[in-house]
Amino acid sequence: MILGIDIGGSQFGLVLATTDGKVVKRVQRSSDRDAGASLTIAHILSESRLLLAASPEPVSCCGIGFGGPVDFGQQRIINSTHVKGWDDCPLPAQITQALGIPAVVDNDANIGALGEFTFGAGIGCDNLVYFTISTGIGGGIIIHGEIYRGSDGNAGELGHCPILLDGPRCDCGNRGCLEALCSGTAIGRRARMAVDKHPRKGRVLLRLAGGDPVTAKTLFDAARQKDAFAQSLVVETCTYLGMGVATAMNAFAPRAIVIGGGVARAGRALFDPLRREADRFLMPIHRPHLKIRPARLGGRSVLMGAVALAEKML
Amino acid sequence: MILGIDIGGSQFGLVLATTDGKVVKRVQRSSDRDAGASLTIAHILSESRLLLAASPEPVSCCGIGFGGPVDFGQQRIINSTHVKGWDDCPLPAQITQALGIPAVVDNDANIGALGEFTFGAGIGCDNLVYFTISTGIGGGIIIHGEIYRGSDGNAGELGHCPILLDGPRCDCGNRGCLEALCSGTAIGRRARMAVDKHPRKGRVLLRLAGGDPVTAKTLFDAARQKDAFAQSLVVETCTYLGMGVATAMNAFAPRAIVIGGGVARAGRALFDPLRREADRFLMPIHRPHLKIRPARLGGRSVLMGAVALAEKML
Repeated sequence: MILGIDIGGSQFGLVLATTDGKVVKRVQRSSDRDAGASLTIAHILSESRLLLAASPEPVSCCGIGFGGPVDFGQQRIINSTHVKGWDDCPLPAQITQALGIPAVVDNDANIGALGEFTFGAGIGCDNLVYFTISTGIGGGIIIHGEIYRGSDGNAGELGHCPILLDGPRCDCGNRGCLEALCSGTAIGRRARMAVDKHPRKGRVLLRLAGGDPVTAKTLFDAARQKDAFAQSLVVETCTYLGMGVATAMNAFAPRAIVIGGGVARAGRALFDPLRREADRFLMPIHRPHLKIRPARLGGRSVLMGAVALAEKML
Repeated sequence: MILGIDIGGSQFGLVLATTDGKVVKRVQRSSDRDAGASLTIAHILSESRLLLAASPEPVSCCGIGFGGPVDFGQQRIINSTHVKGWDDCPLPAQITQALGIPAVVDNDANIGALGEFTFGAGIGCDNLVYFTISTGIGGGIIIHGEIYRGSDGNAGELGHCPILLDGPRCDCGNRGCLEALCSGTAIGRRARMAVDKHPRKGRVLLRLAGGDPVTAKTLFDAARQKDAFAQSLVVETCTYLGMGVATAMNAFAPRAIVIGGGVARAGRALFDPLRREADRFLMPIHRPHLKIRPARLGGRSVLMGAVALAEKML
């Protein structure tokens, strides 16, 4: 039995699963952003103890996916851009000390890629590229069945590939990164700017938002209802995202490109135009080989990847 | 003793070298583009026989770098965009039959990467990205010390990453690829367009060209002489190239990025502005780790990579 933990900016999840990925128990909790890391860790530990006590069999190890940069070699969290107190945190050592089981951590995009590779849409794909599109855009790379971290530990940062010269400012400090154009946050922001500029054309979006700000979800909902203005904004998003997908294909030529995160829940309203737009930027030799697939584990990619990593490493 | 062969669009080279990369003899020959593949192969075979006869020791195997797409698994050349008659050519089998030694082929960008990794600027780099910038832009990837080919055999096509939406047409059929902006051919073409548009500003370029068309070499020569117009065009080139370098860093986080091909011969006139521009597009976590290095083997990257591949495989 393995404990998997997924730590995001505003919530965390825990799962008890067997080594072959059968989920025995799962919990999901909100965390207080302003409380900082130490309170979140205390909360995670108390929830973990409850799970361990309820487990039908002894729990042998723990895998952790963290929503921020991780020094995998040193097994320390580097920091979090969202929550204070995570700087240089030796989380696995703390968990081992508190729970008495070995633990291993990696960043959640790598772990999500491993989860989809082991139990989801990437089963059987020797080489796999995983995009997770939510608040930001993370990338995880599987090469020959293993997470590829590169020489500095930060390979697969596909959300920060430059896509649009002098484009919008990105959280990383640069301009025109894929993330600054196509994250859930960025899609929502671009939709709101378009509606502000063209309120008549944006009336379906405004109606669907019902007085709240237009979001990425509003946009895909309107596109699903065949609203032409929303559809054109979705195509523009998919043009940029298609450039990112083509870049991943040119670089890695993976067996499949799996897309998860909240934005992937838009389903065909995202994937149909994305496949068309990505195709435009592919070399003819790559075109027959591109397979874009939605993540199959949905919100559980990271939890199940954490289980898979612990199973592999510990 | 190993025979290395480098087959380009307008010339081919041969080398006799020891397994540890000591060159015993090297020849370079022009080939007639219009003559087609079979005459070129006959020419290569007769030159190879001369080398084999002159070798101080028996030659055990042959490695070949080919300037076009190769089906590595099937050991067949897919085609050449420059020379007729190469379609689906089983070149290694032909060479084995004619010369009586085992042979192996791969595309010249992969082979150039392996050459620099084994004997050149990439020695000791577990992970390496190699760009070759000449007529086109090729990419070769070394991961954990091995050529990475991806699931469809065509990974590392970094010259076809989309850089500029609706940019200039590329030979691959798409628009705005890195190659369409920054290959030697593209740099020359963009310089000529700029001079046509601003003949007064371009007068140093025109003088250096001496009545011939302005080329990439003219541009770098003028920039080296501090001509402001040429310098601004070089910076623009390095902006696009820097986007490609940042993309390679985000994807692979290699120990080094090695740049070869004819354009790399521009030296600091290229590498100084390129390092500055690439830095703009890098994530802060990658910035301390970027090492851009000129290829150390120059025109011999592919020949020596062919020797290294034969040594590894045969």
